[in-house]
Amino acid sequence: MSRRGERPSPEILATLPVAVDAMGGDKAPAEIVEGARRARDERGVGVVLVGPPERVGDTKGLELVACSEVIAMDEDPAGGVRRKKDSSLVRAAELVRDGKASAMVSAGNTGATMASALLRMGRLPGVQRPCIATPLPRLGRTPAVLVDAGANAECTPAMLVQFAQMGAAYVAARFGTESPSVGLLSIGEEPAKGTPLVKETHGLLTAAAGAGGAFDFVGNLEGRDLLPSPADVVVTDGFTGNVTLKTLEGSLRFLFDTLLGVFGTDEATVAASEVLLPHLLPLAAAFEPENTGGAMLLGIDGVCVISHGSSSATAMMNAVLVGHECATRGLVDHVAAAVRSGESS
Amino acid sequence: MSRRGERPSPEILATLPVAVDAMGGDKAPAEIVEGARRARDERGVGVVLVGPPERVGDTKGLELVACSEVIAMDEDPAGGVRRKKDSSLVRAAELVRDGKASAMVSAGNTGATMASALLRMGRLPGVQRPCIATPLPRLGRTPAVLVDAGANAECTPAMLVQFAQMGAAYVAARFGTESPSVGLLSIGEEPAKGTPLVKETHGLLTAAAGAGGAFDFVGNLEGRDLLPSPADVVVTDGFTGNVTLKTLEGSLRFLFDTLLGVFGTDEATVAASEVLLPHLLPLAAAFEPENTGGAMLLGIDGVCVISHGSSSATAMMNAVLVGHECATRGLVDHVAAAVRSGESS
Repeated sequence: MSRRGERPSPEILATLPVAVDAMGGDKAPAEIVEGARRARDERGVGVVLVGPPERVGDTKGLELVACSEVIAMDEDPAGGVRRKKDSSLVRAAELVRDGKASAMVSAGNTGATMASALLRMGRLPGVQRPCIATPLPRLGRTPAVLVDAGANAECTPAMLVQFAQMGAAYVAARFGTESPSVGLLSIGEEPAKGTPLVKETHGLLTAAAGAGGAFDFVGNLEGRDLLPSPADVVVTDGFTGNVTLKTLEGSLRFLFDTLLGVFGTDEATVAASEVLLPHLLPLAAAFEPENTGGAMLLGIDGVCVISHGSSSATAMMNAVLVGHECATRGLVDHVAAAVRSGESS
Repeated sequence: MSRRGERPSPEILATLPVAVDAMGGDKAPAEIVEGARRARDERGVGVVLVGPPERVGDTKGLELVACSEVIAMDEDPAGGVRRKKDSSLVRAAELVRDGKASAMVSAGNTGATMASALLRMGRLPGVQRPCIATPLPRLGRTPAVLVDAGANAECTPAMLVQFAQMGAAYVAARFGTESPSVGLLSIGEEPAKGTPLVKETHGLLTAAAGAGGAFDFVGNLEGRDLLPSPADVVVTDGFTGNVTLKTLEGSLRFLFDTLLGVFGTDEATVAASEVLLPHLLPLAAAFEPENTGGAMLLGIDGVCVISHGSSSATAMMNAVLVGHECATRGLVDHVAAAVRSGESS
């Protein structure tokens, strides 16, 4: 049921709207629709909403592709996609497959988003498993990305090498990074440190980079190297990647919250905080997941942006912009070429 | 070559000095010796230094057990311990084994510290693998501990269950926590989330807690739950544990450093920071690894404290105090009993 015929060119994709799952996320549909509206009105990006009309309500003048079902946040992903063929997620993926949308965006059930994209758009030739790429903020520079952020709890060395190839193609397409650097997350700098998975991957990445791969391999990184990451792409299995990202998210949120608590202690601290806040806001903005445009599913034949379940209108607008931009820049062609070149090297 | 005869009672251990590897750590010997001196002079805890006299230099009146070798920070751990039988690490472990010290402390080569302790003190009966327990700060409460923080990159479900038993015995002995709670680090709350290792461990921990294990099992935790941890003991494999701890360490250090940079922007921010600093210092102190006393190696027949390689005199003093306190409270007896009771349940 995946794509029939040729993938649309970036020029064609630039003319297509982004398909937004109007029912995905904790704040759906109100914040989702508002974010989509802002993408259109403030940034001129075409959007088509997907959802049951009676549940979406006011579309604020946006086109709505009607469907009859919604896969719930906590529903079994594979079962949901199999049973609910007329759900907003499945229909959004079909719009991309059928050349009617440039990208899909959802803040809904992550597993079901992945399953919809994989089953409807299909896997790119040669890709063993799609992976999730999530931005790691770097102040004053383009973000690094972490792959796999949670699509595959169990991985083989060959999968991790493909994640590196696809992650490098992603930062090249999205941020214009030339010969991106790749680091491997481990528990020490030495190649002999880590699990058998990490040690074998280290050898394969060294060989792939040496054989003219489209990336430089900088060796192992440790958890303490992630802020800011010296490598443009940080490769790890989806279990470690998910735990690591949530640990980062949790520790930053804890510290920001604690800081805000201190600011409100008394009149003197409130006054002091007013002096400091203008300096702290750019930092908070850089680390606010709302601003990063969400995570990208790599390895499928189409652009699929996975937004945080708590996405607000701002988060959704940014996710739409990222989806549009990546489609327009030919992200899928770049990823497909990176995997092909990895196979032949 | 492990212990012959009975383990000394806590009453006897309370009278013994703590053996300090005078040559371990980036700041050895000066800061190490000074930390040991402070433990004696400021807190009345007996200390014996271990190291080559000509390299240790001024012992500040502390007893020195002379040896001729030092295992370097970057030396192969197993090879170092095998070749350097007269090294400070091996001799420190022998002092505990021979009933001449209550505990050993080192800020040196972590792998060699573990190997020395394991080979000289020996494994407790029934323990499959020793593990490292590292504190996770909780403001206003006793810390949680994470096991395994890096001793075993590869683990089985049965090993993780023993880590839970030993971690629970540790927080009970060190902090007096009654029926400690145990959480399992995973990528979602649902028991079906995670790797096969995590899913099988979830079942075993549920059964062990239900069978009257000395802990409550609260289910899966995610990375974002670690600050502050709702469970007294967080169980994971040593690869994930090490990456997670270093991620926490790195993100907190990054934010503290960034905050200090903002404070120094101009005269107004310096003045504002002076108002806020008194409120922020307790927070910084709680998260300063120097103050936590280091990590504990669990599952061996003796007390072994593993300090951070960058340990200052303060960190070393705290590590000595923790070593003394845990020996005096019968930590090893508690851990041995927990593993025995786990075997019979």
